[in-house]
Parts: sequence; C-alpha cells; structure tokens
Amino acid sequence: MSQLMLKNVILNGTLTDIAISGKRFAKIAPGQDTAGYQVIDGKGRFAVLPPFYNTHNHAAMTLLRGYADDMELFTWLHDYIWPAEAKLTGEDIYDGTRLAILEMIKSGTVFFADMYWHQSDTVRAVIEMGVRASIGMLFICDGNGELLERNREGNNKLLKAAENFPEELSLSCAPHAVYTVSEKVLREVAQISRERNLMIHIHASETRREVEECLANHNMTPIAWLDHLGLLTEKTLLAHCTHLSAEDIFLIAARKSVIAHMPVSNMKLCSGSFNLTAAVNGGCRVTIGTDGCSSNNNLSMLEEMKFAALLAKQTADDPEAGKDSLIFDLATRCGAEAFGIDAGVIAEGKLADAVLVDLNNPQMVGDYNLIANMVYSADSSVIDTVICGGRVLMQNRHVPGEEEIIERARKVCRKIAQ
Amino acid sequence: MSQLMLKNVILNGTLTDIAISGKRFAKIAPGQDTAGYQVIDGKGRFAVLPPFYNTHNHAAMTLLRGYADDMELFTWLHDYIWPAEAKLTGEDIYDGTRLAILEMIKSGTVFFADMYWHQSDTVRAVIEMGVRASIGMLFICDGNGELLERNREGNNKLLKAAENFPEELSLSCAPHAVYTVSEKVLREVAQISRERNLMIHIHASETRREVEECLANHNMTPIAWLDHLGLLTEKTLLAHCTHLSAEDIFLIAARKSVIAHMPVSNMKLCSGSFNLTAAVNGGCRVTIGTDGCSSNNNLSMLEEMKFAALLAKQTADDPEAGKDSLIFDLATRCGAEAFGIDAGVIAEGKLADAVLVDLNNPQMVGDYNLIANMVYSADSSVIDTVICGGRVLMQNRHVPGEEEIIERARKVCRKIAQ
Repeated sequence: MSQLMLKNVILNGTLTDIAISGKRFAKIAPGQDTAGYQVIDGKGRFAVLPPFYNTHNHAAMTLLRGYADDMELFTWLHDYIWPAEAKLTGEDIYDGTRLAILEMIKSGTVFFADMYWHQSDTVRAVIEMGVRASIGMLFICDGNGELLERNREGNNKLLKAAENFPEELSLSCAPHAVYTVSEKVLREVAQISRERNLMIHIHASETRREVEECLANHNMTPIAWLDHLGLLTEKTLLAHCTHLSAEDIFLIAARKSVIAHMPVSNMKLCSGSFNLTAAVNGGCRVTIGTDGCSSNNNLSMLEEMKFAALLAKQTADDPEAGKDSLIFDLATRCGAEAFGIDAGVIAEGKLADAVLVDLNNPQMVGDYNLIANMVYSADSSVIDTVICGGRVLMQNRHVPGEEEIIERARKVCRKIAQ
Repeated sequence: MSQLMLKNVILNGTLTDIAISGKRFAKIAPGQDTAGYQVIDGKGRFAVLPPFYNTHNHAAMTLLRGYADDMELFTWLHDYIWPAEAKLTGEDIYDGTRLAILEMIKSGTVFFADMYWHQSDTVRAVIEMGVRASIGMLFICDGNGELLERNREGNNKLLKAAENFPEELSLSCAPHAVYTVSEKVLREVAQISRERNLMIHIHASETRREVEECLANHNMTPIAWLDHLGLLTEKTLLAHCTHLSAEDIFLIAARKSVIAHMPVSNMKLCSGSFNLTAAVNGGCRVTIGTDGCSSNNNLSMLEEMKFAALLAKQTADDPEAGKDSLIFDLATRCGAEAFGIDAGVIAEGKLADAVLVDLNNPQMVGDYNLIANMVYSADSSVIDTVICGGRVLMQNRHVPGEEEIIERARKVCRKIAQ
C-alpha cells in the first residue's frame, strides 16, 4: 500500500502534516515521522484544499476548442460541430479525453461526469491518467422514437466493460434531453437506473425553446415531465436548469435531484441565467460543471466558480448573493457527494483527493481569505500539486507525459481542420 | 542600445524572427543573424502577440484582495475599505503597487491607468518594474465643493515629479466622479487638461444612483454634465459607463472620448451591465480595464476579456455579439491608442511591447484560432515572456525579485489585518 506524507502544509490556516495510506487520509497532525513515506514538502507555503468535481462535461470535445465560436446555436451545431465530430474515431476520443484530463488536472480537477460517445476510449484515458469519472451510456432517439442503434451497441459494450471498472469509475445513464429522447426510451432509462442503481445524467431546461416545446407537447415543463416518467430521483443530475419555474425548483428539491450549473456555457450560448440563489434557497442540491470545451472554451473550475458567483449576484441583483464559501462548496464537496464519492473534504478517513495551492503566487496575496482568493482571484497557476485517491497526478505543475498528449491531440486537430 | 532577438517565434501563424533595437521592433523576417543580439528562443512553439493595456486600475488596492467581499457597496466601503486604506503609508503603496505590477506582468499586461493616492510611491514602483502607466492627479472635494487639501498638495508634488517622468509614464487628471467633485473643481480640471494636454480619467455612469442624482441636481446625465463642463474630449477616459442613454453614446462617440469597460467589477458590485454592442455600434472608442483588486479580485486582462465577451452576448442576447477578435483588439491595440502609446500591434517601427505565449499549454489546444484561445480559454499560465519597450520583464514565467515583492506585501497585509 502506498504511503504518502504531505509535510509542512497549511490546512485551515494551521501548519500540519497529512499522512495518506493507500487511497485515504490516515492521520492529520503536525510533527509526523516520515519514515517509510514518500514525502511532498509543502515548505510552509502550500495550502491543502479539496480538488474540484466537474459534474458536466463532454471531455473529448476539447479537441474542438476554438473551432467555432460566436455563432448562433443551430449554425454552430449543424455547420461546424456535427461535421467535425463525424470525423472522430475511438482513438481520437482517447487522445481528446487525455487532453481534457491533462487540462483538468492542471487546474485542480480530479473528477468529471462525462456524456459523449466511444466511451470505452474515454474509459481507457481516465484509467491511464488516474482521475475519477462517471461515464454515461448515451441515449438519443431516431425520428421514430427508437434508441439509435449505435447507442444500443455502445451501451451494451459499456455495461459489459463496467463489470471491471476500478472504483474510481462509475457508470451512468445519459439520456441526452427530453427533446431528443422519446417517452418510451426515457421510461427504459428510469428502469435501468432503478435496477442497476445508476445515476441519470441529462440536459434539462437548458433553453427557453426546450421548455416551450415540452409544455406544448406534454403540457409539462421538462422537470415535471422527467418526474412524471420516474426520472427525477436523488440519483438524477440535471445539467443546466437555466429555465426553472418555482414549481420546478420545488420538485427538484423534493426529489433530492442534483443540478449541474454551467454559467460560462450558458452565457456564451445565450441560453439564459440559472438562478442560483432561488435554487439554493429552495433547497436544491447544486454542483458546478464546465460543460464541453467547445462551448466554454476551457475546463477550469476556478474560472467557473468566479462566473457562478458573479452571475448569481447579477441575477439576484444582490452583491451578497453567490458568496465565495457557498460557491467553493458547490464546486468541491457537493460535486463529490452528488456522485457518491467519499471525498471533497480534507479529513481523516476520507478518500485522499487534494490540491496543494502555492500561496507565494501573487494571485494569493492579500492573504486574508483563502477561499475568496480561490473563487475570485486564482487561476490554474496557483495549483502546484494534485492528488487523487492517494496517487500524485501532478507535482511542480508537471503531469507525466503531457508533451506527448499535446502532440497527439494536435494531430487530431489537423485531421479535423482538413 | 539594447539589441534583442526573438528567434523562431510564431507571428500571425508564420515562423519568423523579430529583431528589437532599443525600444522598438526593428525587423521582422525569418532567418536573421543573431550576432550582437540577446536571444530569446521561441522554439517554434511561442506565439508573439501584443500585451494588454489595462485602462482602469487602483493598483495598490491589490493589498486588499479578499479583505472584504460579497457585501453591499456602502458597507463594503465604510466598514472595510476606507478604514483599511487609512492605515496605508506611502511605503505601503509602493509595496502594493509592486505586487500589482508583478501580477500584471505575469498575466501579460504592460500598462495600467491608475487612480489612487501617494502617487510618487506608485511612480517609484512603475519605474523600478519597467512597465508603462498613466498616473492620475486625484481630485476629490470636501463638503464645501473645495478640492481636498491633501489632493492639492499631492497633485502639486506630482506635477513637479512629472517633469522628470521617463517616456513610459504619463500624467493624467483624475477627478473621482461627478458626485464627489464640484462643478468648480471639474471646470478647473478641464482647464488643466487643456493647458497641459493631459488625459482626464474619471468614473462615469457607474451606478444607477449616480445617474439619478446627476439628473436631479443638474437635469443632465453624468456624460452630458461632463460635456457641459468641457470635460468630454478625445483625451477623456470614462471608467465603467454601465448606465448610458442613447444620447450619452452619441455624445461620447461625437467627442471621441474613450470608455474603460470593467465587466468583472460591474458584475461583482451589481453596478449594472455595460452594453458593449450598443457602444461599439454607436461609434464609441472602447477599452478594457480590471478595476482595483478589491472589487475584482485580480488584475488578469485574460479573464476580463472572457467576461467582456460573455457579458456582451448576454446583454445583447446574441451569441454573435462580443466576438473574440473585437474583444482582443479592445484589450490590446485600443488601450494603447487611447493613451497615445505607439504600440499594441507587432509591427516594424512600433514600440516593442509583446508577450510570448506557450502553445504547448493544454489551454491552447485545439489550435484552430489563437485569438479565440486567448479570449475564451487562456489563463496566465500561457504567458511565458513579457517585453515592454524592448525590455524583458518576465522570462520562463519568472519576474526578477518576485519573492521579495510577495514577502513585503504580506507584511503590509498583516498590518491592515490588525
């Protein structure tokens, strides 16, 4: 069992040592003996914090960063994103996911909930890079309301593969949205989720048009429709939720479902503004995600936290809304909890997920409030070290193999650009 | 005269060499002889871009980063910011400005327009660190509409010091705002600006309350009032402009005045949303600033560009608004031009201000569109090298003396926190 010691690190303002045995924090106390431990020296200037849990992503779309921006949604999808995606092989997805994970590690993220295709290649990348992920079985229907054949094949393959998943990986059902998945298939998803105890990961109430169409077709909002079909449970992650009614908020809170908030994607695509204050005050469980790189265009949870805080203030017209401590909690502990990961806080017995933050970075001075600095000031340059389940993924801002990952990803970009 | 060669760098997608003689770009062409030159090797993977020009700052307030957040404006100012500021000596301002400049250099900024006090200490820091700045003579009135005595003294001292300013420094008149400076003193400012050919740097139309009070007192908007008093010229920089009428936009465009747009500060303080599209379409000159760290809480123009782009889309409810190429131009060339700095583009004969961006950073892959990546993806970790007027301020992400700057700034923070 690996033994790792974080020596001379700052936890909650106090200098201490943190012993990690295998995958969990074992002992937090100053002055520990390092014999038998691999040691990372915090030099009295590295603060220990929980890392980020990114609850909505399409990781391999990092290959499309900057490919098409500043466009109306329909043009963007039809003329650029879909034709580009059609060129991607499983090996490309592997390369793109590794690029995404590299960027996530470098900005302090150790988990992402993914919704994409060629999932077995995503799985390969996740295992190789040592992060955690929830991998979605994709459900999209054809014009007759039947599940796409390639989804059925891919999902069956993924179900098989999931039998051998390491504990860092989990499987979810990822029906795309109420407007792309038929009632019949949504009911199937609810059943699979119940039978196999799987998370459901779905885009919900992202745009005004989606809500209006759902009201026209079913006389219910997307949230009420999902509830009607048995998909609104405490194992459901609702991505976006930019257009919620008061009744929707009540339903989501009552069912203990989880919202994934993506302020950057919503602002960039003009989808609308999620009302964080209303959702939190209404008792909803909220987490934060970056969405895919093609509508963001990065995977930084640090940046996403700042957008979440400022958008909450703007939406509520209240500078006291979206407080730093709340936002940080959503991006860390709440994300882990939503996916049943026993991490997101630095405490003995918890899974040893952590970042070491360099307090000598100018972005961290004034140094009155570490969490305010993380939410409002820091960018990825403050993250020195990333640890996931006791495994060191980055140290001194270097991830093993990053040069090769960049080089391979660039080759895929050349193919896409052709 | 110093001779610097940027070897094997990428300019507009092409590999080339850039020779810098003294303060200016001398020759841009591949295959140049490096004999007699200090060489920076771009290794075929560093892109050359113009750096950022931050047109509204209170640099020394970086000392108050994270000191007080998530508060209503009045509480924030009266209970936290003003009492803290009262503790600051000139030496503290020097330390705080050096901290600010360190952060600016590390995120690719070579110029800032400052509005603060103890200006001679700001000047010391600017000259020592090698950046450019516009230093404001501060004008704030007492209850009788007379200029504060400490402003008069400080400004006289600054006027004297300005006789020996190096060309990287310029003096401006910085009346605080229409609600803190009397008609009499504003007219004086207009006269000083005319006589000495100085920029005027003023907060204008930042909050709804400011506009309403000005309408009540003068039956004019702040913009119309400034025009009425002769302060709206092509040498006027209007900070914020979150509440402009159609007539205000027309006036600003007609007078060729410059707007400094600060999306982060406006969102954080709930000041309102500047309508970038309306201002640009109306013919206004627009630039970008970060505002001071206590209302931002960092000085990253990279982050500010992303907020500017996304806020423009949200405000116009149009994903085609706030295009990346426009935003990048506002943050670079337009900022330099507003302050009469012959820089902001990489071209022979121009002042040699530049950043080298590391394209091997994962944030820069996919690599279809460099400017999209700068506006939507990059954080400070992509900036490897910063050059201002031919002088290398940062290389390999290290600024000489940064450890001491951090240490001294922390000491001031301890005093403030007491």
